Amino acid sequence: MSEPKDAADSYARAGVSVASGNEAVARYREVLGRWRHADQLDAVGGFAGLFRLPGDARRALVASTDGVGTKVTIAAALRRYGQVGADLVNHCVNDILVSNATPLFFLDYLAVGRLDPEVAAEIVAGCADACRRHDCALLGGETAEMPGVYQAEHFDLAGTIVGVVDVDALPQRESVVAGDAVLGLPAVGLHTNGYSLARTLIPPQEWGAQFGDESYADALLAEHPSYYRDVRAIQAVADVKSMAHITGGGLLENVARTLPDNVKAVFEQQRWSVPPILRELVRRGDLGEEERYRVFNMGIGYTLIVSLGDAGAALQEVPGAKVVGWIEERVPDEPRVVVHPARD
Amino acid sequence: MSEPKDAADSYARAGVSVASGNEAVARYREVLGRWRHADQLDAVGGFAGLFRLPGDARRALVASTDGVGTKVTIAAALRRYGQVGADLVNHCVNDILVSNATPLFFLDYLAVGRLDPEVAAEIVAGCADACRRHDCALLGGETAEMPGVYQAEHFDLAGTIVGVVDVDALPQRESVVAGDAVLGLPAVGLHTNGYSLARTLIPPQEWGAQFGDESYADALLAEHPSYYRDVRAIQAVADVKSMAHITGGGLLENVARTLPDNVKAVFEQQRWSVPPILRELVRRGDLGEEERYRVFNMGIGYTLIVSLGDAGAALQEVPGAKVVGWIEERVPDEPRVVVHPARD
Repeated sequence: MSEPKDAADSYARAGVSVASGNEAVARYREVLGRWRHADQLDAVGGFAGLFRLPGDARRALVASTDGVGTKVTIAAALRRYGQVGADLVNHCVNDILVSNATPLFFLDYLAVGRLDPEVAAEIVAGCADACRRHDCALLGGETAEMPGVYQAEHFDLAGTIVGVVDVDALPQRESVVAGDAVLGLPAVGLHTNGYSLARTLIPPQEWGAQFGDESYADALLAEHPSYYRDVRAIQAVADVKSMAHITGGGLLENVARTLPDNVKAVFEQQRWSVPPILRELVRRGDLGEEERYRVFNMGIGYTLIVSLGDAGAALQEVPGAKVVGWIEERVPDEPRVVVHPARD
Repeated sequence: MSEPKDAADSYARAGVSVASGNEAVARYREVLGRWRHADQLDAVGGFAGLFRLPGDARRALVASTDGVGTKVTIAAALRRYGQVGADLVNHCVNDILVSNATPLFFLDYLAVGRLDPEVAAEIVAGCADACRRHDCALLGGETAEMPGVYQAEHFDLAGTIVGVVDVDALPQRESVVAGDAVLGLPAVGLHTNGYSLARTLIPPQEWGAQFGDESYADALLAEHPSYYRDVRAIQAVADVKSMAHITGGGLLENVARTLPDNVKAVFEQQRWSVPPILRELVRRGDLGEEERYRVFNMGIGYTLIVSLGDAGAALQEVPGAKVVGWIEERVPDEPRVVVHPARD
């Protein structure tokens, strides 16, 4: 996917190269294209990998590895370690939820410059609590003390989740048609994406300052929510055709990956509210429309596509959910996702 | 496990605190003890986690997360990225092999200070090749560009493997009895452990220098081997009662975890040869006997315990394998592992 120049520029200012990321993905595709295991199944939108459950052709294991990104540097600087475990587990749960998977187990990887057992235990306890909330085993993990790779007070946190899904229950993106509604579940902040840019726009010396009713630190560290229960509640009353977890790439890239070729998703941003911290980042960075919807979730953490007839029941089931857009016909070369910004 | 003072001292010189590691493990146990998923099974020696295969009580998934450790700093400094992927995959394969598991799929986590797509692709290609050699799917992964956490040219590499095992085929360490033989499969060097100490004993300016027939860099970066095929070959002709992957903690800690309480393993180091790079590290660090067998594998990468009657057939099947020790009765408070050093 080619990247508009302004987004690449802002990210480059923050030390993250969008072009390098895209090139790496292209090279990985080439590497992975050389051989494919016979039990590997096509994944839904690339949020997770699917592998046939040994001995049971009707079910598949769904696995995803992810990290918390440079949100860890804010947590480390402020010595607030309590929520990063939940950030990570919830992120991973949402990633396999796009394939409709139920979590089975999770493993964490914690790397530190200097191991402080109390801090490490606080981080792992955060993972354990979030796992338990999903009836998901914290099956193992690795803690690595790596002087020379990480500065003493720095750390990195990544994790891998494995879930299971009935193959018949995999979302069928081909069933998405013009006229369907796009439901959005609200985001509370940046979740786990866009932090390298956010840290250049809101520098460390401001993190303690007041921002509305809370501090910048509070707003920046708000916990990445799990959408598991909301999604299951909606599925109980509506036929959900396709879903997306809005992570790096924003609405523009994540929703695009979950649509058939002949439709596009059109979002009306006036239909939902953007969290204050994201508005502040857009203002400070003077981020263009294209860029803001690609770098940040802009207030939508997860999307579900349902027929218009099912939308009412879904909204009643989950009060936080909103109809945030709809599906329209798409002709070749048109963008797959369009966002009409709100006038503010 | 209490740590002898000399080992703790050398590691501390290298910036790695053994005491902190032990304390973190104790705290993790406390955290994980609060709740346990009903489908979690007891793991063999803590090398991996076990989870009942959904819908099939006779089989279990076996999962492990690990990293390459600070071997990555040597690879990064020398811009030799080809083998770290295999180091990681082979390490993970060996970890679940201790539970007798066959690999199903693997996911990688690559974190970098500045993303160089060519380097990233070389690392992932190394993972892909090693996966393919084990008929294991490279199911996914995450590449994170994290300026501020990693220096531009630094990276970290971790991974998660998931395999499957018949519950009936799980090694039964309780079947180990006095008189059994301990078979050892040879190590080629440090594998993926002890690098923080090794880097203080052999500083970067020496890495290019000649060391025997190769350079220090060659010896330090020698690929962590997979013992999968050797172990399967031995299992075809021998009843293997218990196994251990010799990683951090060396023979002393890793073998100890795979024995019943009433026996000890007695190793005779004159029965195998120690790779020159490990001899060199022992010499430079003036490492005591206790320490060298705890920090480094000292030439044994993997152990298998078989009845004495099965040992001959096993050795014939895998020419590199050796009888490196035997099992003896143990009275309470005796060490679980004893190594008699060779006279050299």
